[in-house]
Amino acid sequence: MDTAPLATRHCQPRKGKEHALDKDAIAALLPQLPGWALSADGDALVKDFRFEDFHRTLGFINAVGFMANREDHHPDLEAGYGHCRLRWSTHDVGGLSLNDFICAARVEALLDR
Amino acid sequence: MDTAPLATRHCQPRKGKEHALDKDAIAALLPQLPGWALSADGDALVKDFRFEDFHRTLGFINAVGFMANREDHHPDLEAGYGHCRLRWSTHDVGGLSLNDFICAARVEALLDR
Amino acid sequence: MDTAPLATRHCQPRKGKEHALDKDAIAALLPQLPGWALSADGDALVKDFRFEDFHRTLGFINAVGFMANREDHHPDLEAGYGHCRLRWSTHDVGGLSLNDFICAARVEALLDR
Amino acid sequence: MDTAPLATRHCQPRKGKEHALDKDAIAALLPQLPGWALSADGDALVKDFRFEDFHRTLGFINAVGFMANREDHHPDLEAGYGHCRLRWSTHDVGGLSLNDFICAARVEALLDR
Repeated sequence: MDTAPLATRHCQPRKGKEHALDKDAIAALLPQLPGWALSADGDALVKDFRFEDFHRTLGFINAVGFMANREDHHPDLEAGYGHCRLRWSTHDVGGLSLNDFICAARVEALLDR
Repeated sequence: MDTAPLATRHCQPRKGKEHALDKDAIAALLPQLPGWALSADGDALVKDFRFEDFHRTLGFINAVGFMANREDHHPDLEAGYGHCRLRWSTHDVGGLSLNDFICAARVEALLDR
Repeated sequence: MDTAPLATRHCQPRKGKEHALDKDAIAALLPQLPGWALSADGDALVKDFRFEDFHRTLGFINAVGFMANREDHHPDLEAGYGHCRLRWSTHDVGGLSLNDFICAARVEALLDR
Repeated sequence: MDTAPLATRHCQPRKGKEHALDKDAIAALLPQLPGWALSADGDALVKDFRFEDFHRTLGFINAVGFMANREDHHPDLEAGYGHCRLRWSTHDVGGLSLNDFICAARVEALLDR
């Protein structure tokens, strides 16, 4: 099993139920992602981010977007003047895959100071 | 009353209930905005937009964001890989003001060809 | 001849020397674009823009970029913390075409208040 | 001396000639930045990047811009349809400081796969 930090890993194509993470795997990975939580249905990782103004919110969306395009794994997002909520899920496995944890960790790395 | 096309007008500070548009005013303006609808509670203008990929969705969000910053009136948005839902409302009047119609018309102008 | 305002027109494919504007045509159009000038070699329209900070400079670049992608005509740009220099030229005609004037006018429209 | 990888470090305020890197320090750091070179006058780090289209070029500019805003150290850039040239220099030291190497390394990290 790969034990490199999540934020240094890259997404891989993961399709089919066999790539869905089970409860134990999710419980083991989630503590590595401060502030991230499971959605009510357990199918997604979500976190709210706050920013000083709309310029900074857009800047964050763009930085996340660049990473998402490079990883070819894309979040859903909700945003307004000074906030953005990200939601990572893997449609092709019908729930959470390792890709979602990698991308959430990469988002944290964008904000690391 | 100003009869210039909505997309050529600019937002003004509008605070307080007296700037809230009533049902008749809303009904008169809405036909100028193809595809826009009232939210279920009647307090917001909403429209879904579709794009070919995440690059184009981000490009749209940025173009809307630049306009919103210049007008100092900001939407809520929900977005994913190839779509973006915009929602304009005026918190300071507790519903819809003319600013929301101006911004919706300016969004249409961004996509005018 | 089309006399609609430049900012309401759209770029068209223009390839070949016959689409290059001559000196008289350029001299007639340039007054419609305040602050824009010919490059030293006469082959491009250029203008410098100033902004308060890097957030606003990036916002401008994105708004111009969205328009450029929609018009399928792209500028060269130089930018730093609080400034951006745009340069429009039409490689396929070896100089200036009407597309460059349309895009410059559309940039002005982005900043119209 | 801090030996952590450049891309994991953060910019610090560095003002005054004493923060300017000398030739030996520059020669020691430059091999950590593949593809980066000194400008002709030796005062800046420069590199050209190529992209498939303008969407991707803008995405890169935004990702660099987000990092630059967070580090409060900003590049000059030149860009066109499928390319972007970045230039890092530290005005406050009149040449290169460690901040320029940190930011160049952080740009590389954005593109790390």
